[in-house]
Amino acid sequence: MIIFMDRKLRMGMIGGGEGAFIGEIHRIAARMDGQIELVCGAFSSNPAKSKRSGESLYLPFDRIYDTYQDMIEKESSLSEAERMDFVSIVTPNHVHFDPAKQALEHGFHVVMDKPITFDLNEARKLKQTVDDTNLILCLTHTYTGYPMVKEARQLILNGALGDIRKIYVEYPQGWLSTLLEATGNKQADWKTDPDKSGMAGCMGDIGTHAANLAEYITGLEITKLCADINTVVEGRKLDDDGSVLLKFNNGATGVLFASQVAAGEANNINVRVYGETGGIEWKQEEANKLQVKWQDKPAEIRRTGNDKNYLSGMALHNTRLPAGHPEGYLEAFANLYRNFALMVKARIEDKQPKQEWLDFPGVYEGIRGMLFIEKVIESGNSDKKWIGLS
Amino acid sequence: MIIFMDRKLRMGMIGGGEGAFIGEIHRIAARMDGQIELVCGAFSSNPAKSKRSGESLYLPFDRIYDTYQDMIEKESSLSEAERMDFVSIVTPNHVHFDPAKQALEHGFHVVMDKPITFDLNEARKLKQTVDDTNLILCLTHTYTGYPMVKEARQLILNGALGDIRKIYVEYPQGWLSTLLEATGNKQADWKTDPDKSGMAGCMGDIGTHAANLAEYITGLEITKLCADINTVVEGRKLDDDGSVLLKFNNGATGVLFASQVAAGEANNINVRVYGETGGIEWKQEEANKLQVKWQDKPAEIRRTGNDKNYLSGMALHNTRLPAGHPEGYLEAFANLYRNFALMVKARIEDKQPKQEWLDFPGVYEGIRGMLFIEKVIESGNSDKKWIGLS
Amino acid sequence: MIIFMDRKLRMGMIGGGEGAFIGEIHRIAARMDGQIELVCGAFSSNPAKSKRSGESLYLPFDRIYDTYQDMIEKESSLSEAERMDFVSIVTPNHVHFDPAKQALEHGFHVVMDKPITFDLNEARKLKQTVDDTNLILCLTHTYTGYPMVKEARQLILNGALGDIRKIYVEYPQGWLSTLLEATGNKQADWKTDPDKSGMAGCMGDIGTHAANLAEYITGLEITKLCADINTVVEGRKLDDDGSVLLKFNNGATGVLFASQVAAGEANNINVRVYGETGGIEWKQEEANKLQVKWQDKPAEIRRTGNDKNYLSGMALHNTRLPAGHPEGYLEAFANLYRNFALMVKARIEDKQPKQEWLDFPGVYEGIRGMLFIEKVIESGNSDKKWIGLS
Amino acid sequence: MIIFMDRKLRMGMIGGGEGAFIGEIHRIAARMDGQIELVCGAFSSNPAKSKRSGESLYLPFDRIYDTYQDMIEKESSLSEAERMDFVSIVTPNHVHFDPAKQALEHGFHVVMDKPITFDLNEARKLKQTVDDTNLILCLTHTYTGYPMVKEARQLILNGALGDIRKIYVEYPQGWLSTLLEATGNKQADWKTDPDKSGMAGCMGDIGTHAANLAEYITGLEITKLCADINTVVEGRKLDDDGSVLLKFNNGATGVLFASQVAAGEANNINVRVYGETGGIEWKQEEANKLQVKWQDKPAEIRRTGNDKNYLSGMALHNTRLPAGHPEGYLEAFANLYRNFALMVKARIEDKQPKQEWLDFPGVYEGIRGMLFIEKVIESGNSDKKWIGLS
Repeated sequence: MIIFMDRKLRMGMIGGGEGAFIGEIHRIAARMDGQIELVCGAFSSNPAKSKRSGESLYLPFDRIYDTYQDMIEKESSLSEAERMDFVSIVTPNHVHFDPAKQALEHGFHVVMDKPITFDLNEARKLKQTVDDTNLILCLTHTYTGYPMVKEARQLILNGALGDIRKIYVEYPQGWLSTLLEATGNKQADWKTDPDKSGMAGCMGDIGTHAANLAEYITGLEITKLCADINTVVEGRKLDDDGSVLLKFNNGATGVLFASQVAAGEANNINVRVYGETGGIEWKQEEANKLQVKWQDKPAEIRRTGNDKNYLSGMALHNTRLPAGHPEGYLEAFANLYRNFALMVKARIEDKQPKQEWLDFPGVYEGIRGMLFIEKVIESGNSDKKWIGLS
Repeated sequence: MIIFMDRKLRMGMIGGGEGAFIGEIHRIAARMDGQIELVCGAFSSNPAKSKRSGESLYLPFDRIYDTYQDMIEKESSLSEAERMDFVSIVTPNHVHFDPAKQALEHGFHVVMDKPITFDLNEARKLKQTVDDTNLILCLTHTYTGYPMVKEARQLILNGALGDIRKIYVEYPQGWLSTLLEATGNKQADWKTDPDKSGMAGCMGDIGTHAANLAEYITGLEITKLCADINTVVEGRKLDDDGSVLLKFNNGATGVLFASQVAAGEANNINVRVYGETGGIEWKQEEANKLQVKWQDKPAEIRRTGNDKNYLSGMALHNTRLPAGHPEGYLEAFANLYRNFALMVKARIEDKQPKQEWLDFPGVYEGIRGMLFIEKVIESGNSDKKWIGLS
Repeated sequence: MIIFMDRKLRMGMIGGGEGAFIGEIHRIAARMDGQIELVCGAFSSNPAKSKRSGESLYLPFDRIYDTYQDMIEKESSLSEAERMDFVSIVTPNHVHFDPAKQALEHGFHVVMDKPITFDLNEARKLKQTVDDTNLILCLTHTYTGYPMVKEARQLILNGALGDIRKIYVEYPQGWLSTLLEATGNKQADWKTDPDKSGMAGCMGDIGTHAANLAEYITGLEITKLCADINTVVEGRKLDDDGSVLLKFNNGATGVLFASQVAAGEANNINVRVYGETGGIEWKQEEANKLQVKWQDKPAEIRRTGNDKNYLSGMALHNTRLPAGHPEGYLEAFANLYRNFALMVKARIEDKQPKQEWLDFPGVYEGIRGMLFIEKVIESGNSDKKWIGLS
Repeated sequence: MIIFMDRKLRMGMIGGGEGAFIGEIHRIAARMDGQIELVCGAFSSNPAKSKRSGESLYLPFDRIYDTYQDMIEKESSLSEAERMDFVSIVTPNHVHFDPAKQALEHGFHVVMDKPITFDLNEARKLKQTVDDTNLILCLTHTYTGYPMVKEARQLILNGALGDIRKIYVEYPQGWLSTLLEATGNKQADWKTDPDKSGMAGCMGDIGTHAANLAEYITGLEITKLCADINTVVEGRKLDDDGSVLLKFNNGATGVLFASQVAAGEANNINVRVYGETGGIEWKQEEANKLQVKWQDKPAEIRRTGNDKNYLSGMALHNTRLPAGHPEGYLEAFANLYRNFALMVKARIEDKQPKQEWLDFPGVYEGIRGMLFIEKVIESGNSDKKWIGLS
């Protein structure tokens, strides 16, 4: 860890109360490196639940708020030595835009879960606010936080594979193989509800991760797509599956598929990229391994490890342990928080950030994700073969 | 091996002379179980080359022919005790139809390489000849010969996964990442030449294998497709890459991709099928392993082994060795020859064949393959989203 | 997380200053669940270094101590509302016994790194102190913290494999393939120095982990061993490699090997156990996977995931994430801290602990480890075939 | 295939009749490349069974013999143009020596199954006969026939790993986890019978394979061993399990274990070798893959493929297919027959053999195996720690 400030950053959380999944993930990620402390929160739209949640997190009673509006306002009025530095927004999609906008407008940096907003229009407005306030926004596309994803990106950007020709990205899950939302499952409930998730289900929840991973790892942009979008489980209100043909801005082509009805799969996001001389393959469930396959040499297995000198600086910066000590999802998530924290500290102390600290997703990736959602759903409903993204 | 005839079957070969790849594969496959002997051949359109090839295979001089026409005629005139029982056709695609038709019309059964013919029209005419002659035709879609593919098919047909919802089939290769056909490589030369291969390159050579595997393993039929077909390497005359969205006759959807420019990949055909309760995954490069993933139970690894009682009879019938003794591509290929031989022997001896012997691809699969080729190329050239297969 | 106390536990650290490896691991592990806060430390025998280390951890100046003796004494004199609850000892082996003993005698619980002490005699004396003070001691045999290790143990204890017959445990590393201690590497320096490590190098550092894993996962005890102990790299003062034949108290036999000169290996601890009907295999570098191989059924792959109902309660209690979200070394380490914390809180609040909380290594495992070290080195030097452990 | 003779070699088989396992393996291996034809056999000590077996192999009635003595004598009296060139001996161990000796003394080359003889004394006498007759003897240590084993050997002999320090070789099987010999299983019956197998069970059947693999792949010799030999299943007459500490003639050390009671394992022979700079790992059940792990570079995966130019000539010579087309146990076995056949042909035609053809196990490896058996059993019964092999 690079440290140059004499205190931890102070985080306030919006959402993530009892029964939530992603809130505790964010808190562990924020805690991991000892650079951030949770100082306040509005953990639920239900004030009693917010209180209980805050108490279980050992927060002082007066820093547990009934609403995020309340939190943002009251924290603003605290002294600089006391008030939170940033908010972490971990609510369902329909409660992303407003708290983010308010936080920014009150001078707080923002970490927020993806997809960035409820729809593309909100995303564009939020970009305006980020631009206007010149504050820092981190969007938690977790999979970009893995060291071996960063290694793959560096290999590709450095031209090790030659021009990129093919990109295959997949995200099969099986957890929505049945009508789970009918059983009271909290995650299934909001993720399949168009009023909370937006126009897409599977494509918004995990399709955006896949699209982001494809663009991040290659440095390319999807320019056209052709989608087959399905609602496989009867009674479901949003898509739970889709397959998409892709065209990229350098002429490469590819396939993206995401499914939440691939029974037996857990969280098997993976990506393959092929260039003129070789290809890479990364599977999140074996996250510490990056396969590099060459047309004319033996395949390589690169592995995480902060003692592996053959790895890129970008990979090493995002690795905590020596080789052979597996790191996982929480560490990848913590890398987003760590780089965000380094940037916020640099801002506070008016220092020059390093290249490595800038490497986390933000509002640009947020807009790309919302554009993907809009166009992939449009394509799914269309008889036209190719739909442009622009 | 089940044996009930007092002699080996006699095979004549068309094609497969010096420098050919697939001819020796067919010969090893035919030899493996000691039920078939090569008795004659027309190994090349170049008579001197045919002679040299036949001699190196220890054939008597008078059974090495200058042309296949010559072979078919002269063998017909030999005594029943001497003449070949069947021909094996291992020539490029444009020399499939005529030798097959002539062989059948002279009373010889046929084994032939895929795709079955140069175009769909020829395939339909060949079906007529098969129907008219009532002889046996085996089309070497090799991958259906693997025991674990048969195991997967049995699991699916028996309903172990519930209704099938998703099918992903892939066939990445890297060998045509450069303009190999400009270097004098014999395989690359004819496989990228529209006069020898037909209207498709990659889609004909390996796309058909992938489509066949998807249909074989599920017992379903592709009804619609939407394809992105590419010629990635400059100067190439046929497609070397393609990705296809699929719809199946039970309502399932899927993706097929095949590429010969996936640099670093060798022959990585693989398939995943998901039903209501679980999924299967099979990768040819780890052919002895079948993964079965369940939504509510630990995943299973099934492995080849004629001592593994949990395997289906269909898998066991196509396995030569106890568990832990890997079988490979040649054994899968030999399974096609073995089942074909068992059927031919049953025909000769007028015995009732067993269900297991019938389980090899024939003229139906050949027509499905040609239909796939025509439609996938049509779709690649079309702005229409979905093209029907019928 | 189960929480029932109204504050975090307070930790003081001994060792783990600048340049140390394992200190930050302990701190991350302690931080991860938000139940423990670092309140003080004596991070180095060099006071200036201790200060710098404490400041970089945002500790108040007056809680950064020059020596551990100082820390223990001064913390003892603080009010109950302020003083640390326990110490975490992360010094080289020769500075384990004294701080642990002093901490216990001043009423502080202890977490400490393995091996427990410099020699067996110290370990026995420390056991006496633990018994006398009735305080809680956690020894960080990290690998027992992995959920799939716990799952394997439960399968075995529940008799799923029948009587245990064979145990193979391995720990190959390659980092000492050269005379690294001659280059100023801090870890290599003390780990190969008999004055700091004790009588064993490789066997003490990682052999003890392997022996502990074998005993933990089976619930058995090693009763006899026969060792081949080597110093492979010239100039090294302690063993860097060894292989050991094992006999267990139920009649099972096995092999343990550990090496720090297996060039190319990182941290590849793994274990296989076979019983009458099947076996298990776990590899730390693929920690989220447990293979269960059956003689008469397909092999199973069990995977971590707090939503995997087929897993044992013991595995689920030690899992933070849903299936498909890899957990790693830090989470395994944090499980030790979490269970220790739950036990300490139960003690403070005088509540009944749950079975799951008791499941971490302590002084018994510490003595087993020291006994292993003494006997394995004795065997390495002996012409006698079998040496008893008792 | 390199071919320079105008006919196939002629093989006679001893043993391998109905119900045998390894006989058909030998026949497939011999057939595979079309260079060898089975011309006669004495397939069983039961003449009626021998007849039935020979008929099912389409042999002429007069070349199916009642006894091997009869076969050797009668074939000797046939014309050079007709008589067999060599015998293949696939009987239980107690019927190895005599037929091999008689065949050699009648001028026939020999292929025979391992272990070479019933005891070391017989092996030494057989070596004398081989020396006296100057004929060719191939001992089917199958695992040395795999291309990736040859690749590993070449890497090691070429010094790619530096001096060799550690060798771990394992052979776990589970098929004798129960008292299978009490159920009428033919293989189990003779392999656990000291009158047929010799002094060792597991150590003779598979321990010798492991020892041979370790010596072959490294080019080293075991000089000392210390063994723990067990009979795990009650009622069994020979060992079914053992673990052995090894010392090699260059100072390297290692471990060998073999077990037939590792329930759940099929035929999992594997080997790891570590030198100064890296290590190799090969697992027979994933035979087409060779892992090469480097201390300072990414690990490599080498794969079979006669189009993989990075492989050694020795590996390429023993490969039939392009990369991505898996080869297996039968192909490895066939490599032994192929190299033997090339050597016999070279002898017949008085040509200079190539280096690659010489690369198969013979009487030297046979004596090494018998020495291993004698010493490992002696060690298992001894209180002495180390037993020398000499």
